[in-house]
Formats: sequence, C-alpha cells, structure tokens
Amino acid sequence: RIDGDRLLSNLKALAKVGARPDGSCCRLALTDEDRDGRDLVVQWMKDAGLSVSIDPIGNVFGRRAGKNSALAPVMTGSHTDTVRTGGAYDGNLGVLGGLEVVAALNQANVQTERDLVVGIFTNEEGARFAPDMLGSLVYAGGLPLQDALQTKSIDGAVLGDELKRIGYAGTDALGLYRPHAFVELHIEQGPVLDIEGTVIGAVQNLQGISWQEVTIVGQSNHAGTTPMRMRHDAGYVAASIATFVRELTKSMGGDQVGTVGKIDLTPNLINVIAARAVVTVDLRNTDEDLLQEAEARFAEFLKGISASEGVEISTRRLARFEPVLFDQAVVEIIEQQAELLGLSCRRMTSGAGHDAQMLARICPSAMIFVPSIGGISHNPAEHTEPADLLAGCNVLLHTLIQLLNQ
Amino acid sequence: RIDGDRLLSNLKALAKVGARPDGSCCRLALTDEDRDGRDLVVQWMKDAGLSVSIDPIGNVFGRRAGKNSALAPVMTGSHTDTVRTGGAYDGNLGVLGGLEVVAALNQANVQTERDLVVGIFTNEEGARFAPDMLGSLVYAGGLPLQDALQTKSIDGAVLGDELKRIGYAGTDALGLYRPHAFVELHIEQGPVLDIEGTVIGAVQNLQGISWQEVTIVGQSNHAGTTPMRMRHDAGYVAASIATFVRELTKSMGGDQVGTVGKIDLTPNLINVIAARAVVTVDLRNTDEDLLQEAEARFAEFLKGISASEGVEISTRRLARFEPVLFDQAVVEIIEQQAELLGLSCRRMTSGAGHDAQMLARICPSAMIFVPSIGGISHNPAEHTEPADLLAGCNVLLHTLIQLLNQ
Ligand SMILES: NC(=O)NCCC(=O)O
Ligand SMILES: NC(=O)NCCC(=O)O
Repeated sequence: RIDGDRLLSNLKALAKVGARPDGSCCRLALTDEDRDGRDLVVQWMKDAGLSVSIDPIGNVFGRRAGKNSALAPVMTGSHTDTVRTGGAYDGNLGVLGGLEVVAALNQANVQTERDLVVGIFTNEEGARFAPDMLGSLVYAGGLPLQDALQTKSIDGAVLGDELKRIGYAGTDALGLYRPHAFVELHIEQGPVLDIEGTVIGAVQNLQGISWQEVTIVGQSNHAGTTPMRMRHDAGYVAASIATFVRELTKSMGGDQVGTVGKIDLTPNLINVIAARAVVTVDLRNTDEDLLQEAEARFAEFLKGISASEGVEISTRRLARFEPVLFDQAVVEIIEQQAELLGLSCRRMTSGAGHDAQMLARICPSAMIFVPSIGGISHNPAEHTEPADLLAGCNVLLHTLIQLLNQ
Repeated sequence: RIDGDRLLSNLKALAKVGARPDGSCCRLALTDEDRDGRDLVVQWMKDAGLSVSIDPIGNVFGRRAGKNSALAPVMTGSHTDTVRTGGAYDGNLGVLGGLEVVAALNQANVQTERDLVVGIFTNEEGARFAPDMLGSLVYAGGLPLQDALQTKSIDGAVLGDELKRIGYAGTDALGLYRPHAFVELHIEQGPVLDIEGTVIGAVQNLQGISWQEVTIVGQSNHAGTTPMRMRHDAGYVAASIATFVRELTKSMGGDQVGTVGKIDLTPNLINVIAARAVVTVDLRNTDEDLLQEAEARFAEFLKGISASEGVEISTRRLARFEPVLFDQAVVEIIEQQAELLGLSCRRMTSGAGHDAQMLARICPSAMIFVPSIGGISHNPAEHTEPADLLAGCNVLLHTLIQLLNQ
C-alpha cells in the first residue's frame, strides 16, 4: 500500500522548486530550476536504494533489482519539467508515484521477478524546446540524438549546451532498458473524470499532435497615415490565424481542438503596423485523417490570406505525432486493478501528449489518469484531491506488480 | 535660400545616432539614444548662436533674437525621438529644417521683427510613453506637468526619472514662449503627395486620435485537453479584437483607420491557452462624430466577446485627441510661398499626430508636408527625395519670414 502522506509531502517539496509568487511552478526544461528539481528527485532515488543512470539526452532512470535482471524490466515514470505557469502534479505525479511504488515494495520486502525502473524524461512539456516529449522520443528512437542535441529553445539556447550546463548530459547508453511494459500515472489535465465523478481513467489512446510555427513578413508603416487598403499588416494576419483556428475547430466539430498560444509582433508598438509576426499553432485530433484535414484547411487559409494581405508566410514544423493506440492488455490490467481496489474507472482518451506515447513505440504501454478539478492544468490552480492522487498511485502499484511478475 | 547639402548631411548625422543594422533608427523617447540625439542638436543650436532653454518636461528651445523681443516670437520645430524602427526624416526634418532657416537668416544677415524659436518636443511618437505629442501637449497646457512626469513607459520606467537620468529635466519656465504662430515642416508619412506627384502639402487639418490599451483576463489551461467550449482564451480574444478593428474600418469606410500594433500574451507558450493578453487599439478619423461611433462600436464588441468567451476585459485610455483644424491664414501663407517658389502644392489632411496639433491650442498653427516615397514611414525604408526635403525647407523659410515680420 502506498504511503499517501509521503507522496503528498514529496509533491509539495518538489513544487517548491521554481515556485512563483502566483502559486505556479516554473521549471522550464534544462533551466536552473529544472536542474534543482532533478537533483532533488535523484537524491530521493538514491535514498530509496535505486541505482541511477543518466543517458545522453538527460533522461534519468532509477532501477530496483528484481529476481532476474536478465528479463526485460518494467518501467514507469514521467517528467519533472513544467510550463512557465505549471501546477504541482503535471508529470511530477508520475515520477513521485513511481518512487512511492518502490518505497511500498521496499517496505513490504517484496522481491519481484523483473527489475522495476522509474524514469524522468527530458523536456516533456515542449514549452522551451520543441518537440514536446523530446527525451522519450529520442529514447524510443524517433529522433536522432544528434538532431535533438541541436534543438534551439525559445530563448535561443541550444539543448546540448543546456544539458551540459546543468550537469545532465549523461554518459550511460541511450535506450539502456528495453522495457517489458511501460505504465505512466498522470493527472488527466482535462475535465472528463471530474465531471463524471470517476476516479480512475484507463487511457487507451491519445490524440495526434500537430505543432507549427508560422512567420509572417509584412511591412511596418504608420498606423495613422496608411490607408487600410495599402496595408501589409503582419499583426492582422497573426490575429486572423488565431481566429481562423477557432473557426476551424467549430466547423470540424467533434474532437478537433486548436490553439494559438504564442504571438510575437515586431516592432510591437501602438502606432506602427507590425512588420513581422511569429505565431504557434497547435492542432490535435484523435483521428489521423481528420487531423490531416485540419492541417490542409489551415494551409489553404494561409495561402489565401498571404495573397489578400500581401504578406509572406512561412511555416516551420515543431512537432507532429500521429494518434496513438495503447496496449489493450495493459489497459485491461489497469481496469482490473482499479476494480479490485473498489475504484470507479472508465476507459478514455488522452488530450495531452505524454511520454507513454513514445514508449508505446518500443513496448506495450498505457496510462492511468486521475481527475483534474475543473479540468484545469498548465495553470497554478491545477488540483487533484489527495484521495485521488493516492488512488491512482495504488492502481499504479498493483498494475506494476502484475507486470513485474509476468 | 536653404543650404540643401548641409541639411542632408545633418539629417544623416542625426540618423546615425541610434542606428540599427537593419537601417532603422531607434531613439525611443528619453533613452540614452534619445539623449545622444538631443545632445547633437543642442550643440548645433549653440553653434548657430541660438540661446537654448530647456523646460521641465524636457522640451528644448533655441531662440534667434529679432528686432523686438517684446513681441511674441514665431516658433517652428518638431521632435527627434523615433519609434523602434524609425526612419531618418520623421520629426528630424522639422527640427533640422528650422535650424537651416536660422542658418539662412544668419548667412544673409537678416534681422526679423520677431524672435524665431526652434523647438524640440519631448516624446512625440508615443511609442515609449503614452500619450503621443506629450511634450507639446504639456507645453500647450493640455496635461498637467505633474501628471506627465508620472507617466510610465512600456518598459516600466517613469518619465520624470528618465528625464533626470538623461539630463533633460530643464529648469526654464514651462510655456516660456507664447508664440505669435507655429509652423511645422514634416514628411507626410502617407501616400497622397507621392501618388499625385505634388511636392508641397499645406496641411489644413489633422485626424482625431483614439488610443486605448485593452487587458483581457482569461484562464490558462492545456491546449490539448481543454474542450473548445470550456475555454476562456485571452489570446483568442486579443486576436478577435484585431480582426474586429479591421472589420470596423471596412464597415465604416471613408477615412476610418484602425490598428492593433501591440499584442502581449501571458504565458505565451505553444501548448498553454493564454491567461492574459494586453493589446493596443489605435482608431483615427477626421470626423469627431465618426470617431466616437467607431469607439462606441468597439466598446459594444468588447462587451459581447467578454460575455461569450467568459473573460474579463478592462480598458485604459492612452490618448484621445479630437480632430484639429489648423489656422486658415497660416495655411494660406504656406500656399502662397509654395506658389512663389514655383512648387506644386495642395491642401491636405494629416493622418499622423504632430506637435503642431498641440500648439494649435495656443496659437495660429499649420504644417508643411513633403512626399514620403510609397507612403512608407515608421520603417527604415522611409524616404523623401533630397529635392523635396529642400523644397519643403524653402517653403518653411519663406513662410516663417512672412510671419516673423507681421
Ligand atoms: N502532459 C502534458 O502537458 N504534456 C505536454 C505536451 C502537450 O502539449 O500535450
Ligand atoms: N508623426 C508621427 O509619427 N507622430 C506619432 C504619433 C502618431 O501616431 O500619429
């Protein structure tokens, strides 16, 4: 059984690293704050008797030996980086939950058949470096290490340099473990479980993610003297992209979501028509064909507005992941364990991207969700009831035990 | 007659202060670069034998004595601050043109009846501190000095502190001179003269200017997990404001212009729905009733979208100036002098705000425009042909001579 008090106090201690006056947590990937968070968790790994390894992309693994280390280990884990206004649970729950499973096994002196590995993956959020889930993507062979190390952050820093700077450019082999299975505990970050009053989500699939950066080059000019018909307004085009994305989701209906979260105008002054704008576009759908349709319609829109406003538009792909179907056998184990523990459970889809979707490329994988109050995440108000955190952790414990003894 | 070569070489020398790699000039009001530009021009004033005074809002005046200093002086001038991506002529031409008039009078040993004063007004652009034309507004009694000194810049600095820091918190009396008349030479910054091939604009009126800052408070949340209908997206509302302003200008037609030049999202990350957005809205019309209609329709729009998206919206007034009618007698003198010099001339409206519109509150005022190639301004590509710069300067010289001997 999981020690709920220690889980909560550890979550709190980790949330203090990078804490901000507004209650949010800012541990953008590979910043000093991210390093401090990692250092704390690595210390906890060592305290729990795990043997720690760090790979060249900065993923951290803590291994608890089983009876037969020749067998493929079972892996759990998540990430400890956050967005700029992150909450206390996103990612952290999956890592600290994994450590609680280790603690529970240690406490009960349980020897499992297979090794158990708890992982911390680099730059899951994608808020500082694109793509998101970068560490697990490299781990799963989906992005060459050398390319990943060249990635530029939104502040201009290079990923490889930042890894070295914070002391997490590890020397252990990349892909050291090829897991027997991977299970990730995470808060839902959406409203479904909270609205229904269900405690456990057995996550069976995950939306496709399409990220692009759009750069618009217009012509700066005077806001008072330039007739409307003579404008080449990069700011107006940026705004039109954001309103088009909203229209697109409306007209496609269903699961299609779309967000413009970042807009940067140059020179960004009240009486100057913007010369240049850079915006990001995040499109997601559980259906690959529909996601491609959304992308195609967006590209069509860009063509039209580029011509009508007389601006140059270029796009850069930041991330593109197809929808993922998790392993049905692992999903079933999660459901069974929830039932055995007397917890309400439903199968569901993940709206967010997660490291489990990358691990799914190399081993049977699935996820356990717990409710997010009001569906709020990437916000300091992100909250999950302690009882639900504990419930999720117990489902993780028993699911892992099943897999560890397979 | 004006020395065209020196005018050009002085314009070039001033444009080097704050020059940027892209060819633009950045002397935002009361920055170090603005100070360096002022220092250069003040030195030129002294070299020309003018007696220099600086008032408490940082306006600089160089006086050339006439026969009878008891008479109200005639004033000319403009500003030397720029936007972030300014050109070489905006403002500078009016100041350096005034100095060329002084030089021409000195050279020809002309004694005028009245004193001639050349002014440099503080923060005309409004790009760093709002409102625009702040120095001339204070000079004309339209804004109390104490309020003006408290103004906060877009970078958080306080105007009074910045004035002291750069050494331009003057001790001479505010409103030292109550001019007999004011004439400002300026580039058009719009396309009218260039398209028509006319050399001189005799500016008879000037658009009303409405500036506001709109702050939108929504709720940050996850871009992947948050269903579209549950969003309170401050970024989407910011974008909708910019597209509405464009629609508004279309539906009002005629002279109505409108610009959203500045958009700042928080946290401004790809996968986070923006919690907060701040945008600026610049609306202008030559007709006060129509400008009020535009403002009313905009306010209506804000109400609607605040309700439909579930965000809080507040507005802050940054500037509000009614349309200005210049002094018809001064406009006629400008026309006459252009004709005597054999230069094509037309009456016209100013799309931009200018210091002359503030001086118009306290004395007969008008402006002289010269063409802007392609109507481009607030852009490093801002350009006026040397012959047109010279032509404008000669019209200024002869207009001032008329007024100086009235
Ligand atoms: N779980 C999570 O917030 N992941 C970040 C990547 C995404 O935007 O979905
Ligand atoms: N002339 C000029 O660019 N003035 C700045 C104020 C305005 O935006 O019109």
